[in-house]
Amino acid sequence: MRHPGEARAPWRVALGNIIFNNDTPAGRAFDLVLIVLIFVSILVVMLDSVGSIRATYGPLFEWAEWVLTLIFTVEYVLRLISARHATHYATSFFGVVDLLSILPGYLDLLLPGANYLLIVRVLRLLRIFRILKLARYLNEASVLTEAMRASAAKITVFLAVVLTLVTIIGALMYVIEGPANGYTSIPTSIYWAIVTLTTVGFGDITPKTPLGKGLASLAMILGYGILAVPTGIVTVSLSRAQGRRQPQQPQRTCPRCGLQGHDADARYCKRCGELLPGSS
Amino acid sequence: MRHPGEARAPWRVALGNIIFNNDTPAGRAFDLVLIVLIFVSILVVMLDSVGSIRATYGPLFEWAEWVLTLIFTVEYVLRLISARHATHYATSFFGVVDLLSILPGYLDLLLPGANYLLIVRVLRLLRIFRILKLARYLNEASVLTEAMRASAAKITVFLAVVLTLVTIIGALMYVIEGPANGYTSIPTSIYWAIVTLTTVGFGDITPKTPLGKGLASLAMILGYGILAVPTGIVTVSLSRAQGRRQPQQPQRTCPRCGLQGHDADARYCKRCGELLPGSS
Amino acid sequence: MRHPGEARAPWRVALGNIIFNNDTPAGRAFDLVLIVLIFVSILVVMLDSVGSIRATYGPLFEWAEWVLTLIFTVEYVLRLISARHATHYATSFFGVVDLLSILPGYLDLLLPGANYLLIVRVLRLLRIFRILKLARYLNEASVLTEAMRASAAKITVFLAVVLTLVTIIGALMYVIEGPANGYTSIPTSIYWAIVTLTTVGFGDITPKTPLGKGLASLAMILGYGILAVPTGIVTVSLSRAQGRRQPQQPQRTCPRCGLQGHDADARYCKRCGELLPGSS
Amino acid sequence: MRHPGEARAPWRVALGNIIFNNDTPAGRAFDLVLIVLIFVSILVVMLDSVGSIRATYGPLFEWAEWVLTLIFTVEYVLRLISARHATHYATSFFGVVDLLSILPGYLDLLLPGANYLLIVRVLRLLRIFRILKLARYLNEASVLTEAMRASAAKITVFLAVVLTLVTIIGALMYVIEGPANGYTSIPTSIYWAIVTLTTVGFGDITPKTPLGKGLASLAMILGYGILAVPTGIVTVSLSRAQGRRQPQQPQRTCPRCGLQGHDADARYCKRCGELLPGSS
Repeated sequence: MRHPGEARAPWRVALGNIIFNNDTPAGRAFDLVLIVLIFVSILVVMLDSVGSIRATYGPLFEWAEWVLTLIFTVEYVLRLISARHATHYATSFFGVVDLLSILPGYLDLLLPGANYLLIVRVLRLLRIFRILKLARYLNEASVLTEAMRASAAKITVFLAVVLTLVTIIGALMYVIEGPANGYTSIPTSIYWAIVTLTTVGFGDITPKTPLGKGLASLAMILGYGILAVPTGIVTVSLSRAQGRRQPQQPQRTCPRCGLQGHDADARYCKRCGELLPGSS
Repeated sequence: MRHPGEARAPWRVALGNIIFNNDTPAGRAFDLVLIVLIFVSILVVMLDSVGSIRATYGPLFEWAEWVLTLIFTVEYVLRLISARHATHYATSFFGVVDLLSILPGYLDLLLPGANYLLIVRVLRLLRIFRILKLARYLNEASVLTEAMRASAAKITVFLAVVLTLVTIIGALMYVIEGPANGYTSIPTSIYWAIVTLTTVGFGDITPKTPLGKGLASLAMILGYGILAVPTGIVTVSLSRAQGRRQPQQPQRTCPRCGLQGHDADARYCKRCGELLPGSS
Repeated sequence: MRHPGEARAPWRVALGNIIFNNDTPAGRAFDLVLIVLIFVSILVVMLDSVGSIRATYGPLFEWAEWVLTLIFTVEYVLRLISARHATHYATSFFGVVDLLSILPGYLDLLLPGANYLLIVRVLRLLRIFRILKLARYLNEASVLTEAMRASAAKITVFLAVVLTLVTIIGALMYVIEGPANGYTSIPTSIYWAIVTLTTVGFGDITPKTPLGKGLASLAMILGYGILAVPTGIVTVSLSRAQGRRQPQQPQRTCPRCGLQGHDADARYCKRCGELLPGSS
Repeated sequence: MRHPGEARAPWRVALGNIIFNNDTPAGRAFDLVLIVLIFVSILVVMLDSVGSIRATYGPLFEWAEWVLTLIFTVEYVLRLISARHATHYATSFFGVVDLLSILPGYLDLLLPGANYLLIVRVLRLLRIFRILKLARYLNEASVLTEAMRASAAKITVFLAVVLTLVTIIGALMYVIEGPANGYTSIPTSIYWAIVTLTTVGFGDITPKTPLGKGLASLAMILGYGILAVPTGIVTVSLSRAQGRRQPQQPQRTCPRCGLQGHDADARYCKRCGELLPGSS
């Protein structure tokens, strides 16, 4: 949908092909360089958080962060220039992520040492998915997404039941065990109930009284059975989502009424009775 | 089933429609306000259990609890008045839950500081389900419930085997490890066996002797395999429960060639082109 | 298969019906009493292992144990007398379990305070299954058993892979972390690897070095994926085992060739072409 | 594919049959002895790592290791001699594993006490799989492998999502909890996120702040749901891989009434009794 007034210059179209597509060697090289730079920037953020490494390489990391911020800034500007619609891009999900990738570098000047900017830097990882989106995993990911969407309502019901269960078990344990045994409040007890029902079991809070251990045992066996439900939901959905993908042969269209979706062994249109193409 | 003698006054019918149904704007607004109030009351109970918050907002929470108890009391009375059969409502599951929602407020006057009344307050959460019951998740929930009921017998067998296993493993660990290593009694050892077999693994009690570690390893690998059984049971049940929901129309046979397995929307035989029975 | 020489006295046949069957009121009453006694005896063993309870009720438990041992001895003798073949019964699985139920009581006289006799007492729990075997859960249990047997070979392959994996990961962690960090020997490290791969995660031994944490992370993600395999195996087997049970209508037999296993809609024998009974 | 120039001497062919095949009594005996020796060598490595056992049996273990290394060396040389193509064997996967089985013994002379050689010794375990490969589990293993390969792309997508999730959760927890609560760096926090999301839950690092506990609760419920995805993927793949193994014979159609869907063993049409094509 090209607006007549904004015919892009040929160099902008060429640049857009390199940056936004990956079906040319230049486009693939651009994506590859970008992936490497994103991983390097994530690695820098990670290593910089390790005290002993920062003590030695701190200045190097700061320098690398600046270089990466500059490169990502240039990339952002190029994307803005070469995008078909600059505002569409700037307000899209990945446009916002791209902007978030460069902001922390500049905000550091205003708010030095702001720790929470770390998170924003880690969000650069999301940019990887833009590139993966174009790759051969697209189809697989869409089967998974479809299965997830199909079972969303069931999983919501399931979550409502689990959250109610966890609240009631948490309140019971708070009354049974009490603050003396580590169940300092109902929210803390609910946290414990979640840790237990999901079979994570940190062990930072554990029941001490016989009654508490009995209730915990019940909760664990319940959690064991409950674990089966989301697995069952997703398996059935996945089985269906994949089943629908199965008929990979070309669709035949009835020459008279235009109906599609004929079975592989059909010779006549099931709606109007016309002989189908490819049937003898 | 209306008894002739108790024709309800029109205002009671109108009130009943607002309170018990949600197909009018007034009914939906009533439900929405109720959900918010229930969540607020649960939130008050939770926050009141956190020592540092209670120290500051304790009086506010007490006041809020009183206001909520009064509102829920009015609601309970209105439900009693507007219900088609007051006794039916009062003895129904949700009628009892509604009564339990307001009792702790008044019992607090008689038994100040009774900690276990907390639990009763948390049970207010169950009232949410009355409203959800009327919502679009009904169908999904019924598929889950049906799958659960279908596999109840299998899960009972499974639970009997697990409980026997857990008792025997617990007794073995009690003898092998003994009270010195934390396995203070057979019930405690059974609690440990449940913690281990369900893969929760708190770590409050762990085997110390080589023999104990060996038996624990066996139990864990066993638990790993056993975890698969309820998942398999629920998945198969869910797959069937969902399959049954698909419309089961009768099979039509082509009067000329005898082919079966026609789609629901087929009007002509897909093999010979004959008009199918039941098609116009 | 009755040997001609040993026609049992009528009272022995009647006794056998009460003890071994449960299709008469007397048989059902006998089973019920037995189940209660077994649970009582297990409860006595459990409570007796709790120090504080034994301190108070120790003599009572000893007395109860003696009474129960005497009752079970009488029951064992009655079973021996009324069984169709006394030696068959005595050497059968449940015959041995029945004998093991009474031995500890008498061995206690010879070896007072022998702790390991506890285990033998707990094995009484297995006797419950004899009675359950006759109950309505038989069919469900057999579907589970069949699914298990069908997937035995696959689970063996899976276990071999898991045990190899666990050995290699354990040896690696022993070298990386070493005895100083709790990985005191390769068997201990393998125990840790099993704790980790089965997602139990006690936390009694945890990696301390960065390399160890990295390997542990890999092992956990691997374990996550591996957890899926036995679940998949059992689900598929269960789905098949249940599918085979599905045709619950009475089997029809071909009157000419005797073939069974005809489809519900079959009118003629598929082997010899004879009209099947029940077809018009 | 025999090269004309290298006709093997008959004794080399006979030796090769014993060593590489297991369809003769001698071949089976050879395999059995080898399995026992491999397990003994693994056992020696394991027990030698336990301080208290090494203190007593250290010299015995050293002696056993030498004997086993010599036997495995002779075996390796025999395999080289009797292999159809010595270089093919030497560069194959199992050829390298066989070489790795004997190297540590000799390297110990050059680098005494090198701990990491332990790992190489444990790799001997892989040699078991060569022998299992020839056994009856081959078919089962190939179904599992096929199911794994079929779902590789989906599992890759899944892993990418999980790794991104774990990185973002780890960074968030590092900012929320900080080094004071055990989240000493982002890599450590990511390790914690993996421990939590895979429901292992060691408990060596646990959230202390309310916000951290809240995020951890979210992560655990998320992990609970995510656990369902690989299970679903593998179950569906396994179900398909096993389905494909079922014989796929062509559909037969009754020549008189046109019915399809006949069983593989059917000789007559089950609806009209006509002789089916392909039946004698």
